Amino acid sequence: MRCGLRRSRVRAIDILRSAEVTQMIRVVVVGATGYTGAELTRLILGHPGLSLAGLVGHSTAGEPVSSVMPALAGIVDQDVAPFDAAAIADRADAVFCALPHAASAEKVAALRDAGLVVLDLSADFRLRSIESYREWYGEHPAVDRLGEAVYGLPELHREAIRTADLVAVPGCYPTSTILPLAPLLRAGAIEVDGPIVVDAKSGVSGAGRAAKPRTHYPETAESVRAYSIAGRHRHTPEIEQELSRAAGTEIRVIFSPHLVPMTRGILSTCYVRPRAGFDASRCTEIARELYRGSPSVHVLAAGECPDTLWVRGSNRAHVSYTDDVRSGWIVAQGTLDNLVKGASGQAVQCLNVRFGLDEGAGLSQPAMWP
Amino acid sequence: MRCGLRRSRVRAIDILRSAEVTQMIRVVVVGATGYTGAELTRLILGHPGLSLAGLVGHSTAGEPVSSVMPALAGIVDQDVAPFDAAAIADRADAVFCALPHAASAEKVAALRDAGLVVLDLSADFRLRSIESYREWYGEHPAVDRLGEAVYGLPELHREAIRTADLVAVPGCYPTSTILPLAPLLRAGAIEVDGPIVVDAKSGVSGAGRAAKPRTHYPETAESVRAYSIAGRHRHTPEIEQELSRAAGTEIRVIFSPHLVPMTRGILSTCYVRPRAGFDASRCTEIARELYRGSPSVHVLAAGECPDTLWVRGSNRAHVSYTDDVRSGWIVAQGTLDNLVKGASGQAVQCLNVRFGLDEGAGLSQPAMWP
Amino acid sequence: MRCGLRRSRVRAIDILRSAEVTQMIRVVVVGATGYTGAELTRLILGHPGLSLAGLVGHSTAGEPVSSVMPALAGIVDQDVAPFDAAAIADRADAVFCALPHAASAEKVAALRDAGLVVLDLSADFRLRSIESYREWYGEHPAVDRLGEAVYGLPELHREAIRTADLVAVPGCYPTSTILPLAPLLRAGAIEVDGPIVVDAKSGVSGAGRAAKPRTHYPETAESVRAYSIAGRHRHTPEIEQELSRAAGTEIRVIFSPHLVPMTRGILSTCYVRPRAGFDASRCTEIARELYRGSPSVHVLAAGECPDTLWVRGSNRAHVSYTDDVRSGWIVAQGTLDNLVKGASGQAVQCLNVRFGLDEGAGLSQPAMWP
Amino acid sequence: MRCGLRRSRVRAIDILRSAEVTQMIRVVVVGATGYTGAELTRLILGHPGLSLAGLVGHSTAGEPVSSVMPALAGIVDQDVAPFDAAAIADRADAVFCALPHAASAEKVAALRDAGLVVLDLSADFRLRSIESYREWYGEHPAVDRLGEAVYGLPELHREAIRTADLVAVPGCYPTSTILPLAPLLRAGAIEVDGPIVVDAKSGVSGAGRAAKPRTHYPETAESVRAYSIAGRHRHTPEIEQELSRAAGTEIRVIFSPHLVPMTRGILSTCYVRPRAGFDASRCTEIARELYRGSPSVHVLAAGECPDTLWVRGSNRAHVSYTDDVRSGWIVAQGTLDNLVKGASGQAVQCLNVRFGLDEGAGLSQPAMWP
Repeated sequence: MRCGLRRSRVRAIDILRSAEVTQMIRVVVVGATGYTGAELTRLILGHPGLSLAGLVGHSTAGEPVSSVMPALAGIVDQDVAPFDAAAIADRADAVFCALPHAASAEKVAALRDAGLVVLDLSADFRLRSIESYREWYGEHPAVDRLGEAVYGLPELHREAIRTADLVAVPGCYPTSTILPLAPLLRAGAIEVDGPIVVDAKSGVSGAGRAAKPRTHYPETAESVRAYSIAGRHRHTPEIEQELSRAAGTEIRVIFSPHLVPMTRGILSTCYVRPRAGFDASRCTEIARELYRGSPSVHVLAAGECPDTLWVRGSNRAHVSYTDDVRSGWIVAQGTLDNLVKGASGQAVQCLNVRFGLDEGAGLSQPAMWP
Repeated sequence: MRCGLRRSRVRAIDILRSAEVTQMIRVVVVGATGYTGAELTRLILGHPGLSLAGLVGHSTAGEPVSSVMPALAGIVDQDVAPFDAAAIADRADAVFCALPHAASAEKVAALRDAGLVVLDLSADFRLRSIESYREWYGEHPAVDRLGEAVYGLPELHREAIRTADLVAVPGCYPTSTILPLAPLLRAGAIEVDGPIVVDAKSGVSGAGRAAKPRTHYPETAESVRAYSIAGRHRHTPEIEQELSRAAGTEIRVIFSPHLVPMTRGILSTCYVRPRAGFDASRCTEIARELYRGSPSVHVLAAGECPDTLWVRGSNRAHVSYTDDVRSGWIVAQGTLDNLVKGASGQAVQCLNVRFGLDEGAGLSQPAMWP
Repeated sequence: MRCGLRRSRVRAIDILRSAEVTQMIRVVVVGATGYTGAELTRLILGHPGLSLAGLVGHSTAGEPVSSVMPALAGIVDQDVAPFDAAAIADRADAVFCALPHAASAEKVAALRDAGLVVLDLSADFRLRSIESYREWYGEHPAVDRLGEAVYGLPELHREAIRTADLVAVPGCYPTSTILPLAPLLRAGAIEVDGPIVVDAKSGVSGAGRAAKPRTHYPETAESVRAYSIAGRHRHTPEIEQELSRAAGTEIRVIFSPHLVPMTRGILSTCYVRPRAGFDASRCTEIARELYRGSPSVHVLAAGECPDTLWVRGSNRAHVSYTDDVRSGWIVAQGTLDNLVKGASGQAVQCLNVRFGLDEGAGLSQPAMWP
Repeated sequence: MRCGLRRSRVRAIDILRSAEVTQMIRVVVVGATGYTGAELTRLILGHPGLSLAGLVGHSTAGEPVSSVMPALAGIVDQDVAPFDAAAIADRADAVFCALPHAASAEKVAALRDAGLVVLDLSADFRLRSIESYREWYGEHPAVDRLGEAVYGLPELHREAIRTADLVAVPGCYPTSTILPLAPLLRAGAIEVDGPIVVDAKSGVSGAGRAAKPRTHYPETAESVRAYSIAGRHRHTPEIEQELSRAAGTEIRVIFSPHLVPMTRGILSTCYVRPRAGFDASRCTEIARELYRGSPSVHVLAAGECPDTLWVRGSNRAHVSYTDDVRSGWIVAQGTLDNLVKGASGQAVQCLNVRFGLDEGAGLSQPAMWP
């Protein structure tokens, strides 16, 4: 009988030693009262090497944290603080910035000017091409900081993150799409002469905390619908940028996001044509090889389909490959919790890498199932 | 100000006249206590030209209908009847057969032998090729009746259904996929040299009434997952058969069904490459032309995405086409309620056509929204 | 084997005859684009004796109905009309008014001045005491019309509704509470010396179409919470008024509404102490006696618990009584679809009664299950 | 600006010191593959002072844990072990027993015989009266062990748990009911001459992992229903036992459990009559006083209603009191996650108390919100 933990669990004592115990890393969350902010707070409170040095908000500044986020009642006895880069620099080593795009860049610049390490969850620093940013978002509010940003997908850019002072943490759709496809593109396993079809299904929390008609409960339950499909969704250039880097050539995707009636979770189903000699089993091996040592990615057996519920609440992505024996194509899938591995957990993972902690520190709990 | 009903509502009085009022069509439901059986009963009770002559079940035979289907308490005061083809022939003109495949064929043969018009909701008579049936289902239990079956998609095979005594009512996945694609294939609007990607999302009622671990509430809510993908789902040959008929050439699909946490509804997102001169607007026109006069299909404006909630509970399918301007591809979508236009409503629609009633009789109510 | 419909189904032909066929009753919906307005439209389109003469809205006036309510695309080809009492009087016999309280009274008065029969779904004319209205809602905008209003619960006030020109259709909480309790109070079956505990659970559509943080999908799914409890909810005086009328003495309730994660449905669980000689079986008989001939109420066997899903989409209420053998108390329950028997269906039922149609006309379809 | 954590967060380093680091407490889960077993595993893996020494199952013994519980794929590389008390005693200090009632008692006895500390999540050792056990469950399989069991609600029985070798961990309904009521009964704040009405609403995971028709997704979504009401639910005697202990006199409850369409969470709404001098504010103070120092209970401000979503995934209970000004009664509410504070988290909390760890060790993360 096998008996043991596959990856030895990250033991708190080891983390603390690696962080020199007496010096917990002090972090602040800016944009703390949105969903990714709340999730960051949850993860920080459960992280043995981090110390929560402040929660910053805008419209709720001055209110008790517990009235804005009742899940923290009895746990966090702070008021939401207004943004003040200098004050933050006084008491923190690093900042998680969980603001909407455009609003974020300005604050990030101020925080960087104050000498802080910044993990930015917005889209503002993810695109390496300023032209591409302009095309999809308009003028960039902090062009000069664009150069120092590193794309925060540790599984692909771990080394660059180790020394980065500005990490652009990827979004949920890109992460769930890049993780299954990048290994194949790096290995030259699939054809790249046509666009890759990416059909993605997302839970509703990805749309944020603001109440909108399209996320009103009665019109969301029992509703499945696509939106911003066919090249209209702003995650498209980010996906293409990273797939192109992996492939070493320009990659196009047909990206179709769908909203499904659940709170958390994202599943990207991708359709690719393998080159001669590659099938789902081989792709599985390739991905396992690439993600060996990555605590947050698990590659399922070929032909096994992932399930959003198996990763909910955890910082884990499940990746899988299935042969379509009749057409010869391969269906590649990636799933994750959009608020954890698709946002806040990934940001913590990047911080771990940046500060020399174990990459999985504070992120080792399995999914909340069911 | 425009004011009026686009299609004049099917007025009960007209239906009754067309059915010669004094002679309501008497129908029986075999397999009445499953989900499609319950839905047939609901539709029959709301149909001005049909008279419910009996509900037949197997394991629940002899029990009051209202204890097996509490929604009928106070409405239907019958017991579930055992199957008896002769007894059914005595009191009915037509039979809806809502049994699982294989179990159905035998009963259908007996009902046909007794001279009844049969609308079969199983897969048993949908495939025209006996070889294909064997490959996907095994030996066919009533091969000799295969020849008289007509594929019950009125929008494509209305004339054949008018005189058919055995109608093989299509399933939910095929209907939601064929409706958006058939117009394009008939018109030669899209390339057919490679497989067509069909990424479908279905509500859980499609899996039937039997409780199974995969449809247990706690493991279904907050869960999105693919299943039987990559050429393993038995609806694949049915989809290919009908698309091939529409195209006049062999069509292959990569069909990926997904289960999403809702009870009713199905959405098929299909990815096609248009031939020169065809875009989403042109496809929209082509589909509107084909479905003119079809009361159950509505073609949305180009670029508009359908929503399962807009058709829930109704016998309507919404179809749409969107250009992916960056790749030149077209995203074709079809949505419907899997238990109505994807099963029981479609069966009633076929009966209407077969018996010379207005095609939309008893099916005119809009969706239950929200 | 029993075989037949308990209550003979309302046959369309009979309804039409009773309405003299050539003279369909012409109706208009004011406030057509909210949830109860949409539901009214669905029911009117399925009603054999009603003709839809217009849909009136405010903020959406001038827009196509199908863009405001996509479920009606391809079915209703009208624009939303602005409110104009004279224009409505020209083409309609009766008006359903589905506006928020206060906003409604003014419009109702204008419609009544124009000679129309009005079925008002707001709270404005439900309270018979002007003092009570003031206490809970403030100044009444149309005091002089208060006197002619009849409380539109046909099961209790059928005769008064037959001649009423202004019907105040009860809300969902009162209907689900009054239906199980009124028979007991009329029969003197329960103690009335203390308050009656009413613990109610409602789906989210009861909160209306406007998106609010508390009905935002991610904060509503997986959330159960009470609100406006302990005498704060405005349905309290309406419940007490009707229970007091039934009892012939002042009745107090402790009314605790809860929001549960579903779209439709309401369940009221009430706790009462029976007087000597009364138990759940006797209460069941009493209720069956009172509701004999009422097509919309079904009294379950003693000890059987109702389920919101069994009535969803139908105009039916299920009522039941269960003995708590240990305490001697009785648990009385009522369930219904808040948008149908709790609002729009009940309004149609009142119209049927008022215009001499069969009470169940257009309301005979069973629940959409599942 | 206030800035700090109300209760200083349980720092991993302190826990480890208190557990003498080199000696992690080794635990085994028996019945590991059900929902409470899975939740125990999740909590143990996130607990800095516990070491997972084995997962024991029956029907799945010999299978890889990751195939039975896919959420653990890539995390736990063990097979499910068969039950063997001696083998468990060799490698563990304590055992969590997450088996159904009756099945549990026998295993618990064997584990106790082997000298292990047992935290039993079944109902087998919760009732102190053997007569009461017989009445509700039948013959007790291990009567002689009944005497040593301590009821594992740390907030009320902390001292007894410190030295207990057999802890009977309370169920979800009792915990959510006892926590708001016990303070009032201890303080003599409410009348106890009649039964207390307890109307409870539970998520579906409380019904366990086995698929049943009543928890089949299509019949559970959009469904609210009571079950086993009026003195039929087996949690009734457990609730009454503990309330009676708190009151020092016999307490009766009318306990009405309802199933609502969500996976996790329970809300008990209780109706009580205060004695002179007591209102919701006073009750709030009393409860805060009793739960001072209890890391898992938070008492909301008087009049504030708790929400299951605010505690989901955490080991926290929210308790609140609201005045019904019209009747003078008080509505007392308690909410928690049925799988955490209502089962597995509470078991871990008991273990913490028993082994001298900080009571909140491994349980400090806030709710997963949303």
